[in-house]
Amino acid sequence: MTNKFKSVGIIAKQDDKLAFETVRSLHDFLQSNDIQICIDENAQHCLESTTASCVDVKEMYKNIDLAIVVGGDGTLLSAAQSMVNNDIPIIGINRGRLGFLTNILPENMHQDLKQIFNGEFQEEARTVMTAKHMRGEKQLANCLAINDVVVHARYVVRMIELETRIDDEYLNTVRADGLIVATPTGSTAYALSGGGPIVHPSVATILLVPICPHTLSNRPIAVDENSRIEIVYSNHNELNGIASIDGQMETEVIPGDRIIMQRSSRPLTLIQPNSYSFFKVLRQKLNWSQQP
Amino acid sequence: MTNKFKSVGIIAKQDDKLAFETVRSLHDFLQSNDIQICIDENAQHCLESTTASCVDVKEMYKNIDLAIVVGGDGTLLSAAQSMVNNDIPIIGINRGRLGFLTNILPENMHQDLKQIFNGEFQEEARTVMTAKHMRGEKQLANCLAINDVVVHARYVVRMIELETRIDDEYLNTVRADGLIVATPTGSTAYALSGGGPIVHPSVATILLVPICPHTLSNRPIAVDENSRIEIVYSNHNELNGIASIDGQMETEVIPGDRIIMQRSSRPLTLIQPNSYSFFKVLRQKLNWSQQP
Amino acid sequence: MTNKFKSVGIIAKQDDKLAFETVRSLHDFLQSNDIQICIDENAQHCLESTTASCVDVKEMYKNIDLAIVVGGDGTLLSAAQSMVNNDIPIIGINRGRLGFLTNILPENMHQDLKQIFNGEFQEEARTVMTAKHMRGEKQLANCLAINDVVVHARYVVRMIELETRIDDEYLNTVRADGLIVATPTGSTAYALSGGGPIVHPSVATILLVPICPHTLSNRPIAVDENSRIEIVYSNHNELNGIASIDGQMETEVIPGDRIIMQRSSRPLTLIQPNSYSFFKVLRQKLNWSQQP
Amino acid sequence: MTNKFKSVGIIAKQDDKLAFETVRSLHDFLQSNDIQICIDENAQHCLESTTASCVDVKEMYKNIDLAIVVGGDGTLLSAAQSMVNNDIPIIGINRGRLGFLTNILPENMHQDLKQIFNGEFQEEARTVMTAKHMRGEKQLANCLAINDVVVHARYVVRMIELETRIDDEYLNTVRADGLIVATPTGSTAYALSGGGPIVHPSVATILLVPICPHTLSNRPIAVDENSRIEIVYSNHNELNGIASIDGQMETEVIPGDRIIMQRSSRPLTLIQPNSYSFFKVLRQKLNWSQQP
Repeated sequence: MTNKFKSVGIIAKQDDKLAFETVRSLHDFLQSNDIQICIDENAQHCLESTTASCVDVKEMYKNIDLAIVVGGDGTLLSAAQSMVNNDIPIIGINRGRLGFLTNILPENMHQDLKQIFNGEFQEEARTVMTAKHMRGEKQLANCLAINDVVVHARYVVRMIELETRIDDEYLNTVRADGLIVATPTGSTAYALSGGGPIVHPSVATILLVPICPHTLSNRPIAVDENSRIEIVYSNHNELNGIASIDGQMETEVIPGDRIIMQRSSRPLTLIQPNSYSFFKVLRQKLNWSQQP
Repeated sequence: MTNKFKSVGIIAKQDDKLAFETVRSLHDFLQSNDIQICIDENAQHCLESTTASCVDVKEMYKNIDLAIVVGGDGTLLSAAQSMVNNDIPIIGINRGRLGFLTNILPENMHQDLKQIFNGEFQEEARTVMTAKHMRGEKQLANCLAINDVVVHARYVVRMIELETRIDDEYLNTVRADGLIVATPTGSTAYALSGGGPIVHPSVATILLVPICPHTLSNRPIAVDENSRIEIVYSNHNELNGIASIDGQMETEVIPGDRIIMQRSSRPLTLIQPNSYSFFKVLRQKLNWSQQP
Repeated sequence: MTNKFKSVGIIAKQDDKLAFETVRSLHDFLQSNDIQICIDENAQHCLESTTASCVDVKEMYKNIDLAIVVGGDGTLLSAAQSMVNNDIPIIGINRGRLGFLTNILPENMHQDLKQIFNGEFQEEARTVMTAKHMRGEKQLANCLAINDVVVHARYVVRMIELETRIDDEYLNTVRADGLIVATPTGSTAYALSGGGPIVHPSVATILLVPICPHTLSNRPIAVDENSRIEIVYSNHNELNGIASIDGQMETEVIPGDRIIMQRSSRPLTLIQPNSYSFFKVLRQKLNWSQQP
Repeated sequence: MTNKFKSVGIIAKQDDKLAFETVRSLHDFLQSNDIQICIDENAQHCLESTTASCVDVKEMYKNIDLAIVVGGDGTLLSAAQSMVNNDIPIIGINRGRLGFLTNILPENMHQDLKQIFNGEFQEEARTVMTAKHMRGEKQLANCLAINDVVVHARYVVRMIELETRIDDEYLNTVRADGLIVATPTGSTAYALSGGGPIVHPSVATILLVPICPHTLSNRPIAVDENSRIEIVYSNHNELNGIASIDGQMETEVIPGDRIIMQRSSRPLTLIQPNSYSFFKVLRQKLNWSQQP
């Protein structure tokens, strides 16, 4: 192996026996190939002895040129923010349920990683959004979203009103359980449950998908990925709402607050094995358009 | 007027100026027609002087043979439980937004009520469900649902797993934001937002509509109204859920709890003016199938 | 065997080797159990020697007290009309694709039929509609529909306008590729492709599902099965249309023509094995709500 | 007026009195502004006297630097092919029903055109697809699609099977009434009726929307606009099909034929008044997300 990547961070799903098994196997594989290893706390828990340094996920980027996530999409999403900010590519080894972002199967891990470290892989740039929470002129939060930003009531079965502006132009007012603003990557996540279309990762778009809209005439819309999307949590709402980013973090919104989304200048870089195909993933993991 | 109804209860929307105006006009109308009046606390607030007795909505049934609700569907739903239990018919005068159950417009009130008190009206029997919350053999709650029972996570954007049995036969396991069990009356409420069909009130069916199901192959189903519908809040759920009845009351469910729904032996009786038409309501209040 | 049924008609799918194999096996089974046999022309083609009389499907009812269809739903639907008219129950042995109406698998045929002839079976009464094609006062066609009546343009990708009346009351005007009027049995056929709900066969309803409606606010509706449903092929249509019954027969409609549907007084009686379950069929044949 | 455009072609809807009125008014307006005029046969029919030369729409591009269409989207689509091929921008004056492409109202025509001829306008580049009909190595047809290419059965209510490849990779096999391949412009046309999302014209994507798919797990997909989309009319189809381009022309396909779509190097250039807004059109012409 020519070792395309010299120093690798391992990020593991919490408290998961199968993930831990995979981490141990991955650790040995990397060690035997003379690759420097850096591990997160979860990974450390499952390794009896290692020379690898244990580093917090958010600081890991300083030491590595590749992150390998062992877990599901949730584990990858929680690590993605700091990797995107520092241009560290990510490989996902699936120890979750469906794993749209974690496409390497544990049983194929050694073989796939050998090829990848030899430079045989696909590099996928996934669109990332920045999401800012504004109250008046004050910025209360600012983070990255890989999948989606979801604005909804603090409690379900409570309609909220949201006004959306695209590039400062009024789009519409939605009365619904909530609104999903999704990247193409997010189109196969929550937005799909909400009735949105599937979007290939290479399409330069952001989806707006209402959740249970209270009017028959609503329908998802796909806007330009370079749009500035502003959602106003309407002053008509009597209760506070929540903006949820990738299902990973939440920020409470009060009437009048705005959530502003724009494409991040930095994408998420996923390293996929050459056998990877987005369309195959759709058919196999979603059963998309499969005949009974 | 022959005064088909002798003693009428007035139930008013809370803190609503327009509703209060209508209540005053209604009060005078009934008084001048020598009809006995019984009012709830909200109605009392807006009447400067009245000889009517003020009675709690839940006790009102003892004194009246007709209830007139001034407000929206929420006001009517909150009064419906005790009226159904005591076979008191309801008239709804709309002071809410859409008002699928409150079909008399305030401006037509006098004219419509004159006809109704003369015996010219339509009597609509709307299917009502009983909903029981069971934990093991213990019954934690038992109430009536006019529109729907919605089982969902305590917080939105959290998938739950629900197993449904119909007449003790396994139906399916749904992973979704929640599940709506709706009467035909409820088919134009939350179930419609969830993608369910419109169901005419005379159809003897109960709808099951998943909210944002996490599988592409789900689809609403209509089962026999005499079915015993049992929803198990799966043991796989890590967090508690909520069963919400008509958006009016909630009961917290823990993994393993069951919600059991059956058709109530007593329907909700709505008194509608002769001009009322369910299909017209669909077109006018939902804009259903209207051309732009 | 006590032979609950004494004389059985065999109706076979045309030109289908696998169906013919099943017919031969079925023929021998019935003969060895001293049951009188009556066969259609397709079945005759595959039997080298038989003492059974060959009778046209439409005349078969005179000789039999049970019809066994070997084929798919299409084969069963084409035989159903005369069986319904003469109260002959039907058993379906599946030699088609999905076979929602033909629920006995060829490999289980002997075992299932033994039980059925011993009187162990479920008798399902499926709602049937009459459909009349009227031009002014003249009735041009009158037939039975097991699944659905579909009114559409002669050629696809051509919007048509249809006006619907329920019990002589105006329902709506639909501009669409077409309109599906479906029984509960038809709810898992074409109506499902059009976005309609699944309806349990015991629900007393008829579904109206527009095909590709040209307005965002349309949505399927379920009306009472006792409704008189009248569809007017609007005078605004420039081209003729087609009313298609069960995908089996067609009648050409011109602007102003009406199709009138009502529940038939006679249902279709399906004999199902005791192991049959409608919900299981949904899960297995439609993959309904199955997780990937 | 500085007359940004010197020579203008007028293309009129056939046999339409209101369109003819607008043509006469437009003709006088252009003449009085010393703009050279070129008219099609339909426009000529309604002009009593004119010095303009009458030219076939397909040859008109030789004489003009702007085409003004008076009619609906159909009239514009039928003229678009030759205008796209010769980089002639188009203005649409609405004399049709909705007119997503014809956004100038006749009553605003003079005012809007004055501004446009003064150089105050928006120039919109709409993505156009080329569609080739291939039988083996033989190309049977080759044309441009502004809205969509629809492959379907010759007669409706007849399922067809289509296999789709994207950039020579297998995507899926669809059993459905048909398949719509739509540009963003086409997303508000037939694709919307089929359940597709709304797509802003600036999004670089092509939509694939199945028509009444015979499997529950289908869902529209948006692929990269630079994809080579190949649809094979499956050998399993027993009957021939049709590929319909913009609802304007058809080509008959036999089992094994392929339709290949790619983005055209030339877009359709629409000249819109400065008051034009795509989002406003959605709200006003589709009633999109409007509250009842």
